[in-house]
Amino acid sequence: MSDADDGQDLGITESKEYNTGEWYAEVVQKAELANYGPEGMSGFIVTRPRAYSLWESIQNELDGAFKATGVQNAYFPLFIPESYLEKEKDVVEGFDPEVAWVTQGGYEELEERLAVRPTSESIIAPYMAQWVRSHRDLPLRVNQWCSVVRWEATDTKPFFRTKEFLWQEGHTAHETHDEAWNETMTRLDQYEDLYRDTLAIPVLRGQKPDHDKFPGAHTTTTVEALMPDGKSVQGATSHHLGQSFAEAFDLTFSAEDEEERAAHTTSWGLSWRSLGALIMTHSDDQGLVLPPTVAPEQVVIVPIWQDDTRDDVLQYATGVAADLEEAGVRVELDDRDERNPGFKFNEHELKGVPVRFEIGPHEVEDDEVTVVHRPDGAEETVSREGIVETTEEHLDEVFAKLYATAEETLAEGVRDATERNEILGTIGQHGGYVRAPWCGEEDCETEIKEQIAAEIVMVPFEDDEEKHVHEGEDCAVCGDDAEETAYFAKSY
Amino acid sequence: MSDADDGQDLGITESKEYNTGEWYAEVVQKAELANYGPEGMSGFIVTRPRAYSLWESIQNELDGAFKATGVQNAYFPLFIPESYLEKEKDVVEGFDPEVAWVTQGGYEELEERLAVRPTSESIIAPYMAQWVRSHRDLPLRVNQWCSVVRWEATDTKPFFRTKEFLWQEGHTAHETHDEAWNETMTRLDQYEDLYRDTLAIPVLRGQKPDHDKFPGAHTTTTVEALMPDGKSVQGATSHHLGQSFAEAFDLTFSAEDEEERAAHTTSWGLSWRSLGALIMTHSDDQGLVLPPTVAPEQVVIVPIWQDDTRDDVLQYATGVAADLEEAGVRVELDDRDERNPGFKFNEHELKGVPVRFEIGPHEVEDDEVTVVHRPDGAEETVSREGIVETTEEHLDEVFAKLYATAEETLAEGVRDATERNEILGTIGQHGGYVRAPWCGEEDCETEIKEQIAAEIVMVPFEDDEEKHVHEGEDCAVCGDDAEETAYFAKSY
Ligand SMILES: [Zn+2]
Ligand SMILES: [Zn+2]
Repeated sequence: MSDADDGQDLGITESKEYNTGEWYAEVVQKAELANYGPEGMSGFIVTRPRAYSLWESIQNELDGAFKATGVQNAYFPLFIPESYLEKEKDVVEGFDPEVAWVTQGGYEELEERLAVRPTSESIIAPYMAQWVRSHRDLPLRVNQWCSVVRWEATDTKPFFRTKEFLWQEGHTAHETHDEAWNETMTRLDQYEDLYRDTLAIPVLRGQKPDHDKFPGAHTTTTVEALMPDGKSVQGATSHHLGQSFAEAFDLTFSAEDEEERAAHTTSWGLSWRSLGALIMTHSDDQGLVLPPTVAPEQVVIVPIWQDDTRDDVLQYATGVAADLEEAGVRVELDDRDERNPGFKFNEHELKGVPVRFEIGPHEVEDDEVTVVHRPDGAEETVSREGIVETTEEHLDEVFAKLYATAEETLAEGVRDATERNEILGTIGQHGGYVRAPWCGEEDCETEIKEQIAAEIVMVPFEDDEEKHVHEGEDCAVCGDDAEETAYFAKSY
Repeated sequence: MSDADDGQDLGITESKEYNTGEWYAEVVQKAELANYGPEGMSGFIVTRPRAYSLWESIQNELDGAFKATGVQNAYFPLFIPESYLEKEKDVVEGFDPEVAWVTQGGYEELEERLAVRPTSESIIAPYMAQWVRSHRDLPLRVNQWCSVVRWEATDTKPFFRTKEFLWQEGHTAHETHDEAWNETMTRLDQYEDLYRDTLAIPVLRGQKPDHDKFPGAHTTTTVEALMPDGKSVQGATSHHLGQSFAEAFDLTFSAEDEEERAAHTTSWGLSWRSLGALIMTHSDDQGLVLPPTVAPEQVVIVPIWQDDTRDDVLQYATGVAADLEEAGVRVELDDRDERNPGFKFNEHELKGVPVRFEIGPHEVEDDEVTVVHRPDGAEETVSREGIVETTEEHLDEVFAKLYATAEETLAEGVRDATERNEILGTIGQHGGYVRAPWCGEEDCETEIKEQIAAEIVMVPFEDDEEKHVHEGEDCAVCGDDAEETAYFAKSY
C-alpha cells in the first residue's frame, strides 16, 4: 500500500526472462505477498494477507482431499527433545546441522536441549505406537498443518528457501506393504491434482534415485515442476517408509493371526514452496498472475467516468458486481475516486487479478461489458445479459491459457541425450530436463553434478513406459548397461 | 483405541463433582482427546484427532465471522529477536520470565537470542507500521492462527494450562479512538456468539479492572465462563490498546488533513482454553459430552441383531445412515461384529456422541428408530418416516438441554455480597461469582486474594445497568464509597 502513493515504484522493473531471481523478489514485494524478516532474522519472511490467502486456498483444497480419503488432522508439540531426534538417527541421518535449539525456558537453562521441529517423524511415531494395538486400529492416518524450522544458511528466496516454512506433514501406518504403497500413491496423486487443477501447473511424477531417497525410506516419490528459469522444483514428496521406522519406534500391531508385526508406514508433505512455484510459473513483467481458482479477487471492475456520466456508470457497475457476487464470483468494484482508470489497471495487473471488467458510458449505453484477460491482455466486449455465465467462461479460459502455457514450457523443456557431453551441453544451453539412459550408479550422477550442478531429479515409475530402456542401450555417462531412464536437471 | 481391548479401563472412574481435576484429566485421556508430552517436555500435550477436530470447528466458526467483518489472515515468524521484545518493554511489562529462547542454529551460537513467540505484538506492529502510510490504508486488520509458547512452571491441565498452546491473535489499526473501540467490541461479540451458539456456554461480559488490564492497554475486555467446579475461565479477551503501541512502534498515518497521527490499535485472542471450557462444562461421569454443533459424529447408529435378524437390521440401519448423510448430518453406523451393543453404547457415551440411534428387529418391524440423548439418557421411539427432520429436532433439543444446564449453573453461580466476610464466605462455600460494590482500589482486591485466592475477574461495562452502584453504597471490602460493581471469583 505504501508504494501506491508513488507511481514510479509501483511497477516491476526487472525482467523475468533475463533476471529471474531479482524479478521474482520484486514481484513478491510489490504484489504485497511477503516482506523479509526483521534484522537478526535473515532467512525468515512475513507472509502478508495476499500470499496467506493463496496458502489458504491450497490448504482448503488439499485438506478436503485428505479428509475425503480417511486422514484426520492432529497437532504435535513444536519442540522435540534431543534424545528423540537421536533415536531417529538409528534409522536415518539426523537433521542436526539444520536444527534451531531451545536451550533456555524463562531464566532457567534446560536440562535437555529441545529442537524446534524440523519434521515430526520422531515425535509422532512414538505416539502412533501408543495408539495402535491391534490390526483393527489400522490404517491410522494423521496429518498436521504447521511450521517447521531448518537452519540452512542460504540466500533467502521467499517461499522457496526460508528458515521457517509452512507445510503439512502426513504420517500413516498400515498392515501391509501394499497398503502403504497405495497410500503413498494416493497422496502423490492428490499432489499432482492440486498442481494441475488448482495451480494450473503440470508436473512430472516419479521416484528419487535410491541414493537420494528419504533416509530409511523404501521409496521416495516426487512431483516435479519446471520453472521458467529452467530449474526443477520438487513440488511435494510422498515416502513409502517400509518397516524401518515402525521397527525403530515399536510401532507394532497384533495381526489377525495374533502375531505381533511392525506396521508399514508412510509420510508425505507439501510446503509453501508450492506457492513459490505458483508465483514464478505464471507471473510476468507486469507483476503477479494468478489462476482464477486461487485468486482472492477473480474479477475487478474498473468504472470509467466523467463527471456527467459518473452516476450512471457506477450504478451499472454496481449492478454487475452484485450479480457476480450473488453467483459466488469473487469480485471487487474499484470505485476509488482518487485514482484514475490507468492507475487502477496497472495496480490490479501488478496484483494478479485474472479478469478485468471495464465499464464506461459506452458499455452502459450498449448494455455491454469490456472483458480483459490478465495473462495476455486479450480484450472482448460482451453482453450484459448472461454476465454470470460469460464470466465463468472467461475465468475458465484464463485458467486454460495459463495451463497451456505451462504445459508448453514443460513439453519443450524435456530433451533426450545419450552421451555425457550431450547432457552437459543441453542443460547448459536450455536448462530443463534431460532424459538419458542411466546405469543406476550414483557416480554417474556425481560426475554431472560436479560439472554443471545438475542432478537426477527423478526416474519414472516401474509401470511407466519410458522407464524401460531398450535392450542394448548404454548409460549416457559411463557407457555400462543402462538400467533405467534418468531425468537430469538443475533444481531448487 | 488401546483401552478398548480392556473393558475395565474403558470407563471414567473419577467423579466430576468431588474430584473435578482428576475427572477432567481422565475424560481427556479416555475420550482420546490428548496425551501428555514426552519426558523432558512436561507442560506440553499431543492434541489427538478428536480434540483437533473440535478446534477446527471453533476455527471455522470464528474465522468465518472474522472474514465477514474485514479481517485478513497472515503469518508472522515464529521467532522474535530479543531486541524487539525489549522495545515492547518501553510500553509494557515484558514476557521475559515466560519466554523459551532459541540460542543455537545448527552448530552455531546465535548472536542475538530469539524468543519463541509468546504473543506477536512486538513483531507485527513494526510491519503494520510499514504497510500503513495514509488514512486510506486504515482500518488494517490482520489475524494469525498459530501456536505460542509461555514457559510457565505450573501443573499441566490439557487445554487450560500448557506451555505451548494454539490460539488466534488479531491485530488492528484504526483512525480514531471510537473506531478502535467498536472493533474491540465487535470481536468480543463474536467471542460471546461462539461460546453461546457453538459451544453452548453462556458467558459474562465485561472489562478487567484497571490494575489488571493488558499492560499499556486502554481497556481490556473479557468474556468469562463459569466452570462446574465454581471457578471462572477467561474465555477470550479483546484489548483496546489506545495509541501507546502505535506510538512506540511508529504506526502512524497521514490523516485527511495531512497531519501525521498515531493509529489507534486493538488486539484480541482466543485460545484452545475454549476447548477446555467446552469439555469441562458439558461432560459427566460417563465421559465426554459434546454439543451437536461441534461433535465429529452427531449421531451414532448402533444396530442390535441376532444371527437371524442381522441382515434385515443392517440393511435398515444402512438406509437410515444414508438418509442422514445425504442431508449433511454427521452420522456413523457402528456395525462392528466384534463388539456387542452394550460395549458400543458405553464407548460412544465416553466419546461424547450427542445422539444414539438404536435399531433392532422391533424397530425394523414397526418402521421406527429408538433415539437416545447423550446428556440425560432420554429415550424416545420415533417414526422412520421423516427421520432427517426428526434427527435435526433432536440435535437441536440436545443443544438446548446443554445450554439450559449451563445457563442454570451460571444463574445460580452469581451471588451478591455487601461485606468482606460475605464475599469470603460465599466464595468459600459455593464458589462462583460474588457481585459486590467496590471502591476501585486494587488493595481491596488484594485483601480478598490473600484470604481466599479469588480476584476481580471483571466489572460490567459502563452501559450495563449493574454497573451503576446506588447512591450511598459502600465498598464491600473497605467501606469507602463504591464506584462500581466487581465480580469476585476464583479463576483458572
Ligand atoms: Zn553410468
Ligand atoms: Zn474498597
